[in-house]
Formats: sequence, C-alpha cells, structure tokens
Amino acid sequence: MSTIHFDPAILLADPERRRRILPVLEAALHAVDPGPAVRAALRRTGDRLAVGEAVYDLDQFQRVLLLGFGKAAVAMGLAAAEVLGDRLTAGLLLTKHGHAAGADALPASIAVLEAGHPVPDAAGVQAAQRIAALAEGATARDLVLCLISGGGSALLTLPGAGLTLADLQAATAALLRCGASINEINALRKHLEQLKGGQLARLASPAALASLVLSDVVGSPLDVIASGPTVPDRSTWAEAWQIVRRYGLEPALPAAVIQRLRAGLAGLLPDTPTVGDPLFDRCQTVVVADNGRAAQAAAAQAEALGFNAALLSTFVEGEAREVARVAVALGREAAAHGRPLAAPACLLLGGETTVTLAGQGRGGRNQELALAAALALARVPEGQRIVIAALATDGSDGPTDSAGGLADAGTVTRGLAAGLDAAAHLANNDAYPFLLASGDLLRTGPTQTNVNDLLAVFVF
Amino acid sequence: MSTIHFDPAILLADPERRRRILPVLEAALHAVDPGPAVRAALRRTGDRLAVGEAVYDLDQFQRVLLLGFGKAAVAMGLAAAEVLGDRLTAGLLLTKHGHAAGADALPASIAVLEAGHPVPDAAGVQAAQRIAALAEGATARDLVLCLISGGGSALLTLPGAGLTLADLQAATAALLRCGASINEINALRKHLEQLKGGQLARLASPAALASLVLSDVVGSPLDVIASGPTVPDRSTWAEAWQIVRRYGLEPALPAAVIQRLRAGLAGLLPDTPTVGDPLFDRCQTVVVADNGRAAQAAAAQAEALGFNAALLSTFVEGEAREVARVAVALGREAAAHGRPLAAPACLLLGGETTVTLAGQGRGGRNQELALAAALALARVPEGQRIVIAALATDGSDGPTDSAGGLADAGTVTRGLAAGLDAAAHLANNDAYPFLLASGDLLRTGPTQTNVNDLLAVFVF
Repeated sequence: MSTIHFDPAILLADPERRRRILPVLEAALHAVDPGPAVRAALRRTGDRLAVGEAVYDLDQFQRVLLLGFGKAAVAMGLAAAEVLGDRLTAGLLLTKHGHAAGADALPASIAVLEAGHPVPDAAGVQAAQRIAALAEGATARDLVLCLISGGGSALLTLPGAGLTLADLQAATAALLRCGASINEINALRKHLEQLKGGQLARLASPAALASLVLSDVVGSPLDVIASGPTVPDRSTWAEAWQIVRRYGLEPALPAAVIQRLRAGLAGLLPDTPTVGDPLFDRCQTVVVADNGRAAQAAAAQAEALGFNAALLSTFVEGEAREVARVAVALGREAAAHGRPLAAPACLLLGGETTVTLAGQGRGGRNQELALAAALALARVPEGQRIVIAALATDGSDGPTDSAGGLADAGTVTRGLAAGLDAAAHLANNDAYPFLLASGDLLRTGPTQTNVNDLLAVFVF
Repeated sequence: MSTIHFDPAILLADPERRRRILPVLEAALHAVDPGPAVRAALRRTGDRLAVGEAVYDLDQFQRVLLLGFGKAAVAMGLAAAEVLGDRLTAGLLLTKHGHAAGADALPASIAVLEAGHPVPDAAGVQAAQRIAALAEGATARDLVLCLISGGGSALLTLPGAGLTLADLQAATAALLRCGASINEINALRKHLEQLKGGQLARLASPAALASLVLSDVVGSPLDVIASGPTVPDRSTWAEAWQIVRRYGLEPALPAAVIQRLRAGLAGLLPDTPTVGDPLFDRCQTVVVADNGRAAQAAAAQAEALGFNAALLSTFVEGEAREVARVAVALGREAAAHGRPLAAPACLLLGGETTVTLAGQGRGGRNQELALAAALALARVPEGQRIVIAALATDGSDGPTDSAGGLADAGTVTRGLAAGLDAAAHLANNDAYPFLLASGDLLRTGPTQTNVNDLLAVFVF
C-alpha cells in the first residue's frame, strides 16, 4: 500500500485548517489506491476465491490466468498475485511506458509489457496479440481475471483482420476532424478492432471471466472504461456504418476500413456481443475503485474529524472556473444558513471539469478551479469561513507536477504579496505559478491511481 | 393575494410529472408574493404593531408614515395600508412606470408616483425629493415604515447638493467604461447622492424607522439592496476618492462631482452613516421575502407532494449553461446512487446566473440554462429520470414573455420533431423559440415580485 502525503509547504498558509483538510484528501486517495482496492474486492480463503459478491471454488479450475491493461495494471497485478499466491498460473500485464514500477516483485509467470499511450503503438498491438492468444487459449476449466484501468483502451489495441494500426489511426483522425462525438468514435473503434466492446470476453469464453475495474470515466459506464472489452456492447455494424454516412467519411477512410465495415454490415463478420449474449453468463465485473469510493472515503474521514459531511455528486462536468463558482455558492449557503449542512461542514463533489484555453499559462483544470474559487472567496463575506480543494486523484493536474490546489479568502492577497495578480493569471490559464506563490499548490507525486477529480468545500 | 399559474401548454409534454412539478414552483412564487410577505412580517393587534421580531406601541406615535420605492412598492404598500388601517397617516410610493397596478385601492393619503428604471429620470428625482422631505419632517414621535424592493436604487435617485442628474449619469458612464466593479460604482454613488448608504435613515432620524425589504440581490446584503438607504454603510469619502484615482477618472468626471468629492474628503460634508452610528438605534430592518424563502417554500411543497427535498444554495452565480451541467450532475447522482437524497427527490438552488452572449437569438438566462440542461439530459442514461426547472421569480426571463424553462430527456427530440436543432439554438443564445417548440417554456405573466431565480432538479 502506498503512502500518500502532501508537500508540507501547503501547511504554511493556514496550518490549523489545513491539518484538518489534508487528511480528508489523503483518505480519498488511499481508498482508491489500486493495491488495497484489489485486495478488498479479491479475497482468498484456501480454495475459495471471493470476487466482489461472487465466490469461485478454485478446485474447479485448472488454471487461473491474469490479464491486465491500463496505467494501474502493475499495481493491481501485484495485489492480485499476492492474493492468488500459488494458484496463479500465468498472466500478462500491459501498461504505459514508465508505469511498470514494482513489477520486479511479480511472480516470473506474469509477463509485463509496456506500450504507447495515449497514442497506440506497435508494442501495444504485439502485447494485445499476446493477450488475445492467452484469452483464446482459455477453456471452460480456466478462470481468467481481468484487471482493467484507465488507459486500457489505447494500450489494448488489436486491429481487426485486414487492418493495420495506421488504418485505425487514419480512421480516428478522420472522426476527430469531422466533429464526431466520443460515443460515435467509440462505436466505430469497437467495430474496427478485435478486443474492444466485449470481444475479449468472447475470445476468453467458455472460461469463467472476472473483471476488476478501476474507473477513470465519470459515472463508471462499464462499456466505456477501456472501451469495455469484457462487457456487453450496445453498438452495432449498422450504427458504425451510419456514423460513416452521417459525416460523409467514405472518401476519408482507408479502403480496408470501408471494406471491413461493409463486410460487417453484410453479415460476414460477427457483431460485438450484446446484452443477453449467453457468453456473458460466466462473466462478472466488479468496480474496485471509482470516484464515488474516493468521495465516500473523504466524507467518512471528514466526519471522523468533526465535519458534517455530504457527497453531492460524482458526475460533475463543466468549465472549471464556472464549477468553482457553484462550489463557492454551496459553501456560502452552509456558512450563512447552515444548509444543506451546518458548519463545520464538508461538501464533496467529484467528476472531471474542462478548461477552455484562452491563454498561454501553466496549470490544470483543478488548479484553474482553485484559482477561480479563490477570486470568488475574496469577494464575499462568507469567504473567510470557506476553503475549497480541487484535486486530480492521479496526482497530475494538467502538464504540471501539481495535483491541484486549495483556495481560501487569503489566496488572492497572498499571491498579490508576491507581486502576482490573480485575475490576470486566471485569464491567462496560468494558475500554477500563482498558486505556487500563494502557497496553495497541492502536491502528492504520482498516486498510481486515477478516479478523476475531487472537489471538496470545507466550511469552518 | 395574487394567484400564480403556469400556461397550461407546459403540461402537454409530460402531464403526469409536470402536474407534480408546477405546484412546487407555484409555492415558491406564492411565498414571496409581496402582499402576503408584508402581511406576514407586519401584524397589528389594536395599538400593537409587530414588525418582524420587534413590537411598536402605536399609542406612542403621533404619525405613521409610509415610504416605499421599488418595483413592488405598490403591492407592498397595499398590504401595509391594509394592516395599518386608520393608523396610517400619510405616505408616498415610488415605482417603475407601468408598475402601479392596484394603486386605486390605496387610501387617498398615500401618493403614488412613477419614474424611470433602470435609467433614473427627472420624475424619479422629484419623487425622491418628496420622500426626502417626508423623512426630514419626521420627529421622534413618528414611526416611518420603509418598503424597499428591487429597482429602488435607480428610482430613488437624489443628486447631492450642487449636482445634477446629468452629473450622476456622466459619473456612472465613466465608471462603467473604466471597468470598475459594482461595489466600487455603488461606493461612489452613495457619496454623490443624498439618500443612498443610510442617508435616508439619517434624514428620518430621530423618528423610529422600520424597513421591510424584498430582496432581489443574491445573498440579500442589506447595504446593496436598493443601495441600502436605511442601513449602515461601509464606504467612505476616502474610498470614493481612491476609486477615482485608481481608474484615473478625474479628467472624465464633471467638475461638480470632483468638487463634491474633494469637499467630502476635506471633511466639509458628512460621510455616510456607518455601523455603530447611534441614529440606527431606532432603526430596524426585516427581510420579508428573498430567494431563500422562495426556495424553502418550494422544498416544503415538494415534500408535501412526496419528494425528498433539500435546499443546496441560494448563492448560485455563474454562466447559465455551465450551471446547467452542475444541475444535471446533481440529478444524476440522486438518480444513480440516491445521494444526497433518494428519489423521488427535489434539489433546490437559487441565485442569478449570467449569459455571455455569443449569438443573436431570443431568450433569457433561465431559458438558456434549461436548454443547456436538456442537451445534457439527452446524453446520459439517468436523464430519463430527471426534470430541471429554471425560473425567473419576476416572471420575466430576459426580454421575453417567458419566466424560464423546463428540461427533460425528451426536450431535444421534441424540438427536433419541430425541425429545430437544440445545439444550434444554444450556440445562438436562442432558447426561446426552441423551448416554445418543444413545449418547455414556463409562462406565468408578471408576478409582481423578484427574488432572483430558482433552479429545481427533480428526480423521479
């Protein structure tokens, strides 16, 4: 289990309050640490292996295979290997370049491969082929454990028969150019590749398949996380073809892509397996960590520290600086009227905001949210009683070494004392240097997990 | 008491749910209807007059004077006159042109004047002079009742000695041009006029003064509503002068304005009365209606109709379409996870959003919020269980005859069936025709009140 701590510099501005705030954020990160999360969902007692609510009798299986892909594959794999011990037969973990730390402690039977992310590369295709081969070789007497985490979609890229990686890249580029939605892009990808959209589960069938998922998608839709390789898919060849027609993409797509889609439409290729397909009778999926788990852990820790706490939403999306204003509005109500909770209160929200870039500065969506909140807090009488925290749970907010930021009624003046203008920094999307100067940068280092962002409104 | 009903056309889209939603919104409007609100705060039993928590013995007063200004002055005045009956001596109500409906029912001793809003005019100055004279003539044996509502700041404009209305307008224009904040503009106004910033209370002193306030400002700061003519002020001559210097306004301001500010700075003119000034010992203020009261009434009605209800904030500000996304995020959490309340749930927010115009269409901030929410609801699985209402409590959302809009998962497709594209209408700030076509326009007609906007998230 990793220990997550914040850079002690964050205590300088207001040590008393911050000593109460940081443990709340730490508790959230601990709750979604991949290792403990896997160990909580995967418990072995002798020959009995509990996966979530289901129990497998390991005696009935010849082999237990471990397939993992995503940025947390190694951390999840280490925990799974520890739980399975001598019952683990073999496996393959596929992660992003540079994310294989700790792999040395894995049993020799577990291969670890690294590949490109977010742009798929040949290494990923080769690894996906090996994963496909392992799945295809599994029999009804095998148990396959899949460890799925963020980044899995790009890493686990296996082009459909007759297609190359370059064909897929050309198709993606054309879809992005025409303004197709992410759902449309995903529907097409699932039909141009061999593992996405439940197809890995079909390959593994008739083996028993249990997927442990660490969700980095708001709302945790299982068919979206890592493109849903082990769950039923809702898209079809017909829909994929409609998307091509809708955007007039035929001239822009490689001939091999068009040929595959036409073959699928003509019934010459199987469609992705859908809800009700009997192959899923032996499949189950457990979300071992997601934004809600992090936010609930934060709420529990806040209550332990004397706050009244409530989790308001794990679905927050929108422009970071505007979400900041709503967070301030929630804090003001608690401070002024004790609604929805009396102070000391901690209101928790989760999700993933966006930043529409207008400037050239350094920052990330959480830092931008914190800076916008700071400007609002400086202007309102209740601001003195409110502290807002915006945190990227992977510890990396935008292209910076910060995980996010804090905002209180003094943030703006602390930055001003260092010669920095908060409004100008916000206008230039330049929150990082401002929060560095004001003493409000949250820094954790990489956390090895990712369940999107947390937004906590503390009212004292 | 006015009866507020919605245009029955709103029932067409989804009568079953809407019959449960509309009474919640109606309850909110009824709770802040000026007449009932004044009657609830002002109760007479024989010679005893209760104003909020305080009780006046009318026997001790020679005269009871009624001074009212704002868009709800007549509605509030009618209720006050009814309560006071024969103990009401005289008074003057100042309202916006066209807002004097019902004035015929007032006693002959109460004058009603109409003036310009939002741009002050000569009629307003003349009326303000008469109000000032009535206040100044009040003695320690008089009780002055002030009825304050939105619009009162522009209506009650009395230029400082030596200044003309044109001077004030030139000063305001210069302040707006230089980008001064609304707080800065108000600080200067209070020092260029004779009634704002507690100065009306000073004129009325040593009379007893009770103010009944209908708040149209988010958070109900008493020194901001109608520019706080009867409450302590926090701005000073020194601050007013600093603002002039900060923006280099000396060349842009009329000579008479500069002269007055210099005289004030030199101690030749009294400053606005501040907190602790003994003149306020005989003054009290009761907020008879505000956004919180409306939202609380909505919550109570929702609970009566079987919803779990919570009031989350009355301080909501921000870009309408982004606030819409947060509202959807709150609804999704309740639908998916029963947090913070289990369905059926009604989450209430209040405040006032803004719209940054990028298009040429028709609409208002509430209609824009509803249309943005509709687009989000159409895209998420929980959308089917969510209805969002955005309502301007004055019944007039933007320059339209609508009070706002509803949004559900069918809004986008109902508009599409009429040939309208929701995303295109949102991009053009053109929510009105879309919501008209989709059957989602809220229409109440003028409500005679204004306590900002309500945002209700219903989860079924």
